[in-house]
Amino acid sequence: MLRAKIFPDHPREMCNAMSVMGPAADHYPHPHLLGIEGLTPGEITLILDRAQHYAEKNRSADKTSNILAGATVVNLFYENSTRTLTSFELAAKRLGADVINMTVGTSSVKKGETLIDTAMTLNAMNPDALVVRHGDSGAVKLLSEKVNCAVLNAGDGRHEHPTQALLDALTIRRHKGRLHRLNVAICGDIAHSRVARSNILLLNTMGSRVRLVAPPTLIPSKIDRMGVEIFHDMEEGLKDCDIVMMLRLQLERMEGSFIPSVREYFHFHGLDRAKLSNAKPDALIMHPGPMNRGVEIDSEVADDVERSVIREQVEMGVAVRMAALELLVQNHRKLGGQA
Amino acid sequence: MLRAKIFPDHPREMCNAMSVMGPAADHYPHPHLLGIEGLTPGEITLILDRAQHYAEKNRSADKTSNILAGATVVNLFYENSTRTLTSFELAAKRLGADVINMTVGTSSVKKGETLIDTAMTLNAMNPDALVVRHGDSGAVKLLSEKVNCAVLNAGDGRHEHPTQALLDALTIRRHKGRLHRLNVAICGDIAHSRVARSNILLLNTMGSRVRLVAPPTLIPSKIDRMGVEIFHDMEEGLKDCDIVMMLRLQLERMEGSFIPSVREYFHFHGLDRAKLSNAKPDALIMHPGPMNRGVEIDSEVADDVERSVIREQVEMGVAVRMAALELLVQNHRKLGGQA
Amino acid sequence: MLRAKIFPDHPREMCNAMSVMGPAADHYPHPHLLGIEGLTPGEITLILDRAQHYAEKNRSADKTSNILAGATVVNLFYENSTRTLTSFELAAKRLGADVINMTVGTSSVKKGETLIDTAMTLNAMNPDALVVRHGDSGAVKLLSEKVNCAVLNAGDGRHEHPTQALLDALTIRRHKGRLHRLNVAICGDIAHSRVARSNILLLNTMGSRVRLVAPPTLIPSKIDRMGVEIFHDMEEGLKDCDIVMMLRLQLERMEGSFIPSVREYFHFHGLDRAKLSNAKPDALIMHPGPMNRGVEIDSEVADDVERSVIREQVEMGVAVRMAALELLVQNHRKLGGQA
Repeated sequence: MLRAKIFPDHPREMCNAMSVMGPAADHYPHPHLLGIEGLTPGEITLILDRAQHYAEKNRSADKTSNILAGATVVNLFYENSTRTLTSFELAAKRLGADVINMTVGTSSVKKGETLIDTAMTLNAMNPDALVVRHGDSGAVKLLSEKVNCAVLNAGDGRHEHPTQALLDALTIRRHKGRLHRLNVAICGDIAHSRVARSNILLLNTMGSRVRLVAPPTLIPSKIDRMGVEIFHDMEEGLKDCDIVMMLRLQLERMEGSFIPSVREYFHFHGLDRAKLSNAKPDALIMHPGPMNRGVEIDSEVADDVERSVIREQVEMGVAVRMAALELLVQNHRKLGGQA
Repeated sequence: MLRAKIFPDHPREMCNAMSVMGPAADHYPHPHLLGIEGLTPGEITLILDRAQHYAEKNRSADKTSNILAGATVVNLFYENSTRTLTSFELAAKRLGADVINMTVGTSSVKKGETLIDTAMTLNAMNPDALVVRHGDSGAVKLLSEKVNCAVLNAGDGRHEHPTQALLDALTIRRHKGRLHRLNVAICGDIAHSRVARSNILLLNTMGSRVRLVAPPTLIPSKIDRMGVEIFHDMEEGLKDCDIVMMLRLQLERMEGSFIPSVREYFHFHGLDRAKLSNAKPDALIMHPGPMNRGVEIDSEVADDVERSVIREQVEMGVAVRMAALELLVQNHRKLGGQA
Repeated sequence: MLRAKIFPDHPREMCNAMSVMGPAADHYPHPHLLGIEGLTPGEITLILDRAQHYAEKNRSADKTSNILAGATVVNLFYENSTRTLTSFELAAKRLGADVINMTVGTSSVKKGETLIDTAMTLNAMNPDALVVRHGDSGAVKLLSEKVNCAVLNAGDGRHEHPTQALLDALTIRRHKGRLHRLNVAICGDIAHSRVARSNILLLNTMGSRVRLVAPPTLIPSKIDRMGVEIFHDMEEGLKDCDIVMMLRLQLERMEGSFIPSVREYFHFHGLDRAKLSNAKPDALIMHPGPMNRGVEIDSEVADDVERSVIREQVEMGVAVRMAALELLVQNHRKLGGQA
């Protein structure tokens, strides 16, 4: 076991822990949502508070408002992700916006057009928000510098997936009542995971401690300045955790695989009842989905009625995306719309 | 010719014929619409009466209402069927609901996720209704037991396709003024057909007599207790029929084909003017579409202005799905929404 | 250089130039929009005036109206064109209509159904407008004769693409203040281009002069009665032009290519700063998109802030389609809807 705590002396999380005592920010001051990096605890709290409002509304008979009536939201997805696309689509529709889905990369859409030309073409249709998923880290930021609408990052390469971290945070806050002083274990395929990265940033900012639990081959070589502890052994890594956050094993990205076998992976790194017993008795079980049952997580644990909040994560996803779209489009409207 | 009448003594249809004299049911008492099986004549009449209301509205300038405003309808299709998907999508939109389409099976959506996990993920997004098409008989019922929204079966394996039978019934009722004491010939590929099965159940329930007309290889070995007559010869089978309901030959499911040739099939079992002359002069010509012209039906007959109601079937499809969605979502709302 | 002026004596454009002095037509008198051919200057002006209204609205916070609430618009695309499809989809949504997209030809939709059967099936769902793109010239007109809703041609074979010509015209009018007495050079792949054809028809009708600039292999053998001048040399062809309209090189349609190489094509026929210097100093640079940068157009010219209006063409596309849908559906409604 390796315990390479980074920045042990002035842990960033402790500083931030104090700031979360204060109220939510008055407004969301950024034109885009490109990542968790750069958000203050107050801004994160603002988004989560608004999302909590939508979480309640989404359980009522009238899930739809007119708050974004007259606005246009375009989902531009260069990677297939039905789950995330559906969540954003539904969020925009429930706010009353007109929604256009554009999934590129599948086949014929490209005709040799560049990312920027595609984005500028969509921008010319006067959208209020552009939701973008792309395989390259930084592609969404690049695009945000070209268009004159709000841009939401729905996942870019191995960089960030901010709405995933926000929905995870909302789910945690609903069960634990807070986002500070929690021990969170993020387990599995860290190397390929923008989900892990955004979660580390958010949890550190809000004052919680993150541990990464994974075999050495699935830890990126450079986790610099992220204030995390690293474990290679599940039992040690889960010890006294409040949250066990499993990651999807990106089997499709693992050619020339370094994993001896799925069975062996599950034996050492899959979450089952035995390994989970090391965490606190009321530890939450989380997974961003879609799950590989029997690979990174056992069905018994995934379906644990008491502690698994995996379905609730999906539910909070719609709520968080409603909050983010609302805040960003309203900002955009205050700025006077398209130029 | 074989005339294997089942239950000749106490034909079920005669009992039901009386009950259809009564009024429509007060309300639709089921949480789902999984099949025609189990529906009473009054419940079927209730759906058809409401659908007739929408059939009229759909011909007006204002086709849209707000009756399901604030509701979310998700179409989850594991089999490609643009026609049925479009019909459900339009039905939900014309009721004012937010609609999400999810077509799985095409390609990348799966990522190894199970049917139930996909359904539970969608369920977590708080839909009011889930419309499901799946290749396996019983898959839709299984799914309905897991989710807490209304489930509509849009076709499952060789089991049922209830909205198809309801739209066929509405089309018949509009022309014949009744659904009892009619002789209905269902012709062609019975073996692969959930459409046939749902129609037999509905027509029997409403008090009509169904004949199946097909070569022996296209009749399922076990048509038990369905109260039908079986014919292998078209001319005998169509004799004095009120309704000639052709089925689509599922050429794509017939590998290692038992049909000598399409030409031969058409010669013996395709509907043309000569064979049709055996039916009553005002017999309706029906087909669930899409048609294989020159295979199971001749163009002259398909486009017969007087008797072919094939286009009207499509039109009634939207109306029936509007009625079903309305009744089910309103039931669901009375039950207090998601738990 | 070849200068084959057709109809030099009574140029049609001059006659039409006078009629454009008059006001816009009172209403759009046609049931469909199948092409520019047959439209009067007053009818074109009517569409453009209405589109200009929507162009302004589309830049405001409230882009949506209820003018087509209760109406259904179906987009039936037999050729992939995400850009045009998205533009029509957004136009219909911003008018408050319910929209259904159906992209055929991609894969499984067909099941052997004919174009007319597919169209009649959609027609049976009581749409108010059907927007159709098809690879065969004349297919859209054929279809319009069968259905009882308004039909908009979104591009048919090498025949017409009327909304493209209208959006080009609106873009020109916004910058030049008029559509008559302009010299317009249409450059590049004329042979494969319905865009060129519709633009020639519109510009001639409005009283402008069109030159086609292309290598002989890319000029159709029969440009009869279209009142155009033909140039094979870019420098001569662009001389003193008000508008330089580049066409997309349809690389995907050019098997057994007659072009020595893309590099050579760009050298002789691609628009760059040097060739552009022959046009008027304030000449507009246009391209229907998507661009092949470095093939038919140089990036420096495509992104020219002063003169390139390529993004604005996209923006005007939504506005023009809103105007066309509004005018056609309102006509359709006056006629009493579906029969």
